[in-house]
Amino acid sequence: MTAETSGTTSTVKQNRGGLEGVVAATTALSKVEGIAGRLIYRGYNIHDLARTTSFEEIAYLLWYGKLPTKMELVDLKVQMLEERTLPMAVLQVLKDLPPTAAPMDVLRTAVSALGAATIQGKPTLDQAIALTERFPLILAAFHRMRNGLEPLEPHPEIGYAANYLYLLSGQMPKEEHVRALNAYLVLLADHGMNASTFTARIIASTESDIASAVVGAIGALKGPLHGGAPSKVQDMLEAIGTEDRAENWLRDALARGDRLMGFGHRIYKTEDPRAEELREMARIADPQQFALARRVEEIALALLEEQKPGRRLYTNVEFYSAVVLASVGLPRDLFTPTFAASRVAGWTAHILEQVTNNRLIRPEAEYTGATEQQFVPLDERQ
Amino acid sequence: MTAETSGTTSTVKQNRGGLEGVVAATTALSKVEGIAGRLIYRGYNIHDLARTTSFEEIAYLLWYGKLPTKMELVDLKVQMLEERTLPMAVLQVLKDLPPTAAPMDVLRTAVSALGAATIQGKPTLDQAIALTERFPLILAAFHRMRNGLEPLEPHPEIGYAANYLYLLSGQMPKEEHVRALNAYLVLLADHGMNASTFTARIIASTESDIASAVVGAIGALKGPLHGGAPSKVQDMLEAIGTEDRAENWLRDALARGDRLMGFGHRIYKTEDPRAEELREMARIADPQQFALARRVEEIALALLEEQKPGRRLYTNVEFYSAVVLASVGLPRDLFTPTFAASRVAGWTAHILEQVTNNRLIRPEAEYTGATEQQFVPLDERQ
Repeated sequence: MTAETSGTTSTVKQNRGGLEGVVAATTALSKVEGIAGRLIYRGYNIHDLARTTSFEEIAYLLWYGKLPTKMELVDLKVQMLEERTLPMAVLQVLKDLPPTAAPMDVLRTAVSALGAATIQGKPTLDQAIALTERFPLILAAFHRMRNGLEPLEPHPEIGYAANYLYLLSGQMPKEEHVRALNAYLVLLADHGMNASTFTARIIASTESDIASAVVGAIGALKGPLHGGAPSKVQDMLEAIGTEDRAENWLRDALARGDRLMGFGHRIYKTEDPRAEELREMARIADPQQFALARRVEEIALALLEEQKPGRRLYTNVEFYSAVVLASVGLPRDLFTPTFAASRVAGWTAHILEQVTNNRLIRPEAEYTGATEQQFVPLDERQ
Repeated sequence: MTAETSGTTSTVKQNRGGLEGVVAATTALSKVEGIAGRLIYRGYNIHDLARTTSFEEIAYLLWYGKLPTKMELVDLKVQMLEERTLPMAVLQVLKDLPPTAAPMDVLRTAVSALGAATIQGKPTLDQAIALTERFPLILAAFHRMRNGLEPLEPHPEIGYAANYLYLLSGQMPKEEHVRALNAYLVLLADHGMNASTFTARIIASTESDIASAVVGAIGALKGPLHGGAPSKVQDMLEAIGTEDRAENWLRDALARGDRLMGFGHRIYKTEDPRAEELREMARIADPQQFALARRVEEIALALLEEQKPGRRLYTNVEFYSAVVLASVGLPRDLFTPTFAASRVAGWTAHILEQVTNNRLIRPEAEYTGATEQQFVPLDERQ
């Protein structure tokens, strides 16, 4: 850390490279307690919500500030159903992109096109609802097109999680799969001032539109340091293959100095509360895949403790996210986009919160470049 | 400002709502001195660069850290020329969007599609060059299409500024217009840790790709609190119409409590050094438009000083940006997109700087929401 005396004020400024420990905003949406291992959405503990609420209820909670009554939830679901269709311009953009494109890039582009075609003015709750409902539609349409299939008509009578699975496969999904995916969507919907949410709030703070802010957030979530690594957990589990191979494989990986995927978190110094819930959902969604994952987890935690005593590395949200998403039938490259299909509820709620009492987010930089230089015209430069 | 004792560390955390005065990153790219009214690019004073260098030279300076020799500049121009073409997927996406779409939304979508179709892996200088060169092509192609015209083939033998004007009109641009637009592009290419640049760096800090970071930056620049207001200056000048009407019009506007567009800046407490240079370029580009603008500026500054003595509001970069861009023939809704066609050099240079010595930018939030609440299942909710 360096300090400098400001040119514009007389306070001493500290350089906060990663902004770690800097409170950049206030929010009533969620609270992340790293030491206690607790996650709170608007006063509700995530453990109370994970197995009892639908994604739509949680979106309502984040957007409106309270859990809905039955009638309020029906109203929201009706409104979401009205948005359960893709404008022709967006479908056309999906067709123009190469089938080999990364789904996160496709999602970013399609949401941007959706904004260009349908969104104007200041962020509104109606826009938040319309954008959120389209995420599964965009992902499923692209996934089918890249496999040479026509996109399906969205199902008019099932929930957000079930409709996503239906649109991907064309079949009514199993009850356990819907339950597991729904819990995943509930658990990932918000998480304090993470990098993508912060990105969305900065963009909204310029008085830009909601689509611009969400598109920026998708770009941030794509990065492996934020949302982009759960597929690597699945790569690891597939490479291990069977329970009996787990210990040797993990020991070899650690001996090579490889990082085990799915353990440790910058904020949580205990088990991530979401990991605990996702573990149960993985058990329900596919007992066989779960057995391997559980064995790998147990051995990995034991080996990590053996090799790095006291470091206390715990299972993070990515580990069982990957297992749950694979168990419900998602291809690996849709893991992070599906994370986005959950987090969009949090992003849009944060954007609406930011614009309610806005102030442009505009930090400063410490200049470390060349001192003043004499300019030499091009003709005389050596 | 509020303070709270952190749950995860023992330091006291201050809430920095707009992050004002918080140093969020170090950069060797540019230095903004608000009190002195100085802007430095890698050690060079903007006043030394504005009338003597081409946009390509400045992009080189930002990307490579030094001004190019003649041969180095030729090499860069050759590389940029090789990128002077739009992939079919991007042209197709432009055709899919409604002709009424906001050009900033179109630019955001087209750059996202360009990324989806052509960019993979970690940010590179080659990608920065390829993205930058495409900005004028995207804007001009969309502008012609929305007017029912076919996009033109880019010109293979003229510079970045001239090619942009040529692609918009189909005619070789006047020398004074090229000179003025080039100076504009030089002057706007970088400006410390502004909101769009900060957005780009946060996205890059997650190890996402360069297109994701640039797309987020476009969304932030779109906001009127950042890049989205120069067209309002032109609205004002058009409403005033002639020099003799200026004083009454401005007095009436102030009496109504309207804000005069183009004066005052969050950072500069003296004249923005870019405004001074742009004033000269406006004079060159169109003496007649300049005469009106200059008269409006003089009266506005006098009235502001009369009404708010000591507030010291100065002409900001937006005022003469608008005059220059209008003078070279740009329609009003391309003003902010043209700002992007300059700033993309700075954004990409910042992204490359960020990833060279990366640390995830992840601040904290102060939770101000509900205290812990008892969960009530949906069936029992009133």
